[in-house]
Amino acid sequence: MSGLSVVLVSPRNPLNIGAAARAMSNFGFSDLRVVNPYDVAFREAVSAVGADAVMQAARVYPTVPEAIADCSLVVGTTGGDHRDPEQPLRRLEYGARMIQGHPSVALLFGSEKYGLSNDDISHCHWLMQIPARSEHRSMNLGQAVAVCLYELIRDETMASAPAHPKRSAASSQTELLRERLAEVLLISGYYDHTAVEGAERRLRALVKRMNLSQQDTVVWLGIFRQILWKLKGTA
Amino acid sequence: MSGLSVVLVSPRNPLNIGAAARAMSNFGFSDLRVVNPYDVAFREAVSAVGADAVMQAARVYPTVPEAIADCSLVVGTTGGDHRDPEQPLRRLEYGARMIQGHPSVALLFGSEKYGLSNDDISHCHWLMQIPARSEHRSMNLGQAVAVCLYELIRDETMASAPAHPKRSAASSQTELLRERLAEVLLISGYYDHTAVEGAERRLRALVKRMNLSQQDTVVWLGIFRQILWKLKGTA
Repeated sequence: MSGLSVVLVSPRNPLNIGAAARAMSNFGFSDLRVVNPYDVAFREAVSAVGADAVMQAARVYPTVPEAIADCSLVVGTTGGDHRDPEQPLRRLEYGARMIQGHPSVALLFGSEKYGLSNDDISHCHWLMQIPARSEHRSMNLGQAVAVCLYELIRDETMASAPAHPKRSAASSQTELLRERLAEVLLISGYYDHTAVEGAERRLRALVKRMNLSQQDTVVWLGIFRQILWKLKGTA
Repeated sequence: MSGLSVVLVSPRNPLNIGAAARAMSNFGFSDLRVVNPYDVAFREAVSAVGADAVMQAARVYPTVPEAIADCSLVVGTTGGDHRDPEQPLRRLEYGARMIQGHPSVALLFGSEKYGLSNDDISHCHWLMQIPARSEHRSMNLGQAVAVCLYELIRDETMASAPAHPKRSAASSQTELLRERLAEVLLISGYYDHTAVEGAERRLRALVKRMNLSQQDTVVWLGIFRQILWKLKGTA
């Protein structure tokens, strides 16, 4: 997404400017533009301990039209409550699909207190809404930037990825574990010798349900070997 | 997602505690638990201007096991660089699907500086990783909470929602607009009377590409009516 510029319009809090830059760095975006910031706030954000390359390279513009002059798609973010009903409003999940792959997009975020003004919004092709609760739509600026950028880089194919990369134990290993466990149970007197029917099957299912990795199976085999050694020694 | 508890382990910055609570309120979560917070930070966060109901209702616990005692699924969040390779690590997109619908989940976030300790992690069933750049994995605490909760509430069906709810103009309206535009062009001398072949078709396509709403079509019809009136008056 090298074609995306994050545009903060009239931000007032240096922590929020820095947080926006940090989220950009986390998610792989680099072009930060700041319109008419409170001057002290901007200088504080740039000089803050831990300010990263994104923050250092941020550019300041006096007005929105100047900040977005080279962008061919301009998208505003909004709480979505007070707006022109004619302006298309798209939920983040859908809007992100329309932004992805576009060569030069400006994504606008309004000030902490007032959001984007009607004048700012008139420069936008459409508006994008983060699906927050209608009772509490107003998001923290840094968090709103993070959530929008995350939606842009998230990978839907990962949503159905395999459970996890651990190497599961082979059946021969779990069967060995079942045998050793059976020996422990027998020697320790767990069975009363009247109800052993189906015991092997039940033990096998019990071990399977542990869903062990190769490595943990080795650990369990060692545990039961030690228990057996102790049981036999005291018998 | 009333069954989800956000657990902040040893947070140090009151702004981050407050930001986590705000994101929870934005996305409809209410159970915030704070383990061993820096005491001053916690009191500041609760008493901060704008602290919401989630923050007011937050509970403090001395240790992780006490905070998660009633939860049957415990998921840790991590930058994912220094961890036990045996602990399953799932990307956020996938992990969220496993959390959704679970009746009692604890989602753990570590301290700003160190993340979750190995001891904290040993209480987790598995770990969840936000897909940040490997060069800059470490996220701001409040932003990490916001992004994880967003993934839990986002609606994939919305990603393919219809473009936007505006009511598009009917073809009869756009055709009327094309006719009026043609009249304006003719009277204003836009055509040189040698190249009119295909002009009607090209104008129709031009108007279609405006992709107008009903309301904007009425506006444009009025504009051209006024231009025509002026053109005819000065002719």
